[in-house]
Amino acid sequence: MGFIKKTLDFINHRRNPVKFARKIGVNAGENCRFIGPQIWGTEPWLITIGDNTTVSFDCAFITHDGATRVIKRKEKYKDVVKFGKITIGNNCFIGARSTILPGVTIGNSCIVAAGSVVTKDIPNGEVWGGVPAKFIKTVHDYAENLYDNMPEYDVENYHANKKEEVLKMLERENKE
Amino acid sequence: MGFIKKTLDFINHRRNPVKFARKIGVNAGENCRFIGPQIWGTEPWLITIGDNTTVSFDCAFITHDGATRVIKRKEKYKDVVKFGKITIGNNCFIGARSTILPGVTIGNSCIVAAGSVVTKDIPNGEVWGGVPAKFIKTVHDYAENLYDNMPEYDVENYHANKKEEVLKMLERENKE
Amino acid sequence: MGFIKKTLDFINHRRNPVKFARKIGVNAGENCRFIGPQIWGTEPWLITIGDNTTVSFDCAFITHDGATRVIKRKEKYKDVVKFGKITIGNNCFIGARSTILPGVTIGNSCIVAAGSVVTKDIPNGEVWGGVPAKFIKTVHDYAENLYDNMPEYDVENYHANKKEEVLKMLERENKE
Repeated sequence: MGFIKKTLDFINHRRNPVKFARKIGVNAGENCRFIGPQIWGTEPWLITIGDNTTVSFDCAFITHDGATRVIKRKEKYKDVVKFGKITIGNNCFIGARSTILPGVTIGNSCIVAAGSVVTKDIPNGEVWGGVPAKFIKTVHDYAENLYDNMPEYDVENYHANKKEEVLKMLERENKE
Repeated sequence: MGFIKKTLDFINHRRNPVKFARKIGVNAGENCRFIGPQIWGTEPWLITIGDNTTVSFDCAFITHDGATRVIKRKEKYKDVVKFGKITIGNNCFIGARSTILPGVTIGNSCIVAAGSVVTKDIPNGEVWGGVPAKFIKTVHDYAENLYDNMPEYDVENYHANKKEEVLKMLERENKE
Repeated sequence: MGFIKKTLDFINHRRNPVKFARKIGVNAGENCRFIGPQIWGTEPWLITIGDNTTVSFDCAFITHDGATRVIKRKEKYKDVVKFGKITIGNNCFIGARSTILPGVTIGNSCIVAAGSVVTKDIPNGEVWGGVPAKFIKTVHDYAENLYDNMPEYDVENYHANKKEEVLKMLERENKE
């Protein structure tokens, strides 16, 4: 029984990750985009994802500290627990394979680099990355840098025929 | 054939991760808890996990150095191999998505933070984390810190109705 | 439809990872070895893997910057895109669970340690690791170190009966 349920969950998760997340209790905002499977942990109802936020593939949201098991055998610590909400603002991008730890609040318009473990709050408009994640730059600087190095390309053809236009744009860059 | 076997392994792994680990040769102690799938590598018989130890989801145990392939083409290095036992003590917690490398010994009552890559031995009673993992604090300090910040809650109701009690406890924290 | 295709891809990917990678457009050299599933991303045709290169399990190759979505809502940045080829040389080893970011070129005979996030080019013959990946040592030093610490073992028996010979070699090391 449990196994059949898990298999169906596995399939549904991949078919429509946002719908699946909402179904298990994640508070996902409007126009979210979750790319491929995420691990929402054992308390998905402690997780809030803002509007227009993208969560890339294979991210994990951990809302309790399982390591308390190590200390609970001592009488003094036997009732120690640690849970924490995870709150991600609007218009963020959470990079692939990131892990977000209990109690973390990420502001609006933030970027978390791929493979990060986020252990602290991230203020609005900042790019963080690493294990543990640290400040890298502001989103403003990130944007300006991309803008200054933006490849020349045909926007219309990019939307019609991405592969052709991407290959052309990289060829052009190569020649410079 | 190989594929059907792999599929059945995949299912069994998820159904009872400890039983599966033992079946393929992992020396898993009493009262271990393995949460979800782990990657036990190609020499599971080199891995020992102590009693009462929890391994969280998606951990990988690598017991040989595959990078030797890069140097084996030179005559001098053609027979170079590196294997190493992985030994984890009693009452440890290995955080989600950690990777443990060949030859590593982790003591008793240790905590490895989520997303770590453990390349060195960890002495008894220490919390390590990062890529590569480094000392963060003692388990004693970790325990005292959690104890000092322990939320007020109804232990009995927590066990009967976790969600309700967790939400209450976080609401209370919020007000402080 | 999409789901059945995905399931078949999932199976084929595991059956023959190199064949699968080539089928979706990865330019994989002769005698490559891809161990288990990799994530080749949305532009596999931007990825080149040299001859005799090993990619260990669960590596991800990211050839575009998805975080641009965060800034595209501003008129100024609405057409910003960032794509980048990933080129890995001959005779490399990419450690398990590594993530390679857009635009990265890795030279020949390089080693990337497990769990790395590679954000910069790696010159020929170097070992890099970490998040973000940094220089650790030369492959020459890596090779010499392994050579100096090479266990005594019976090469023939190792190929005939790996488990027996590995256990013997570790027992011998233990006694020293």
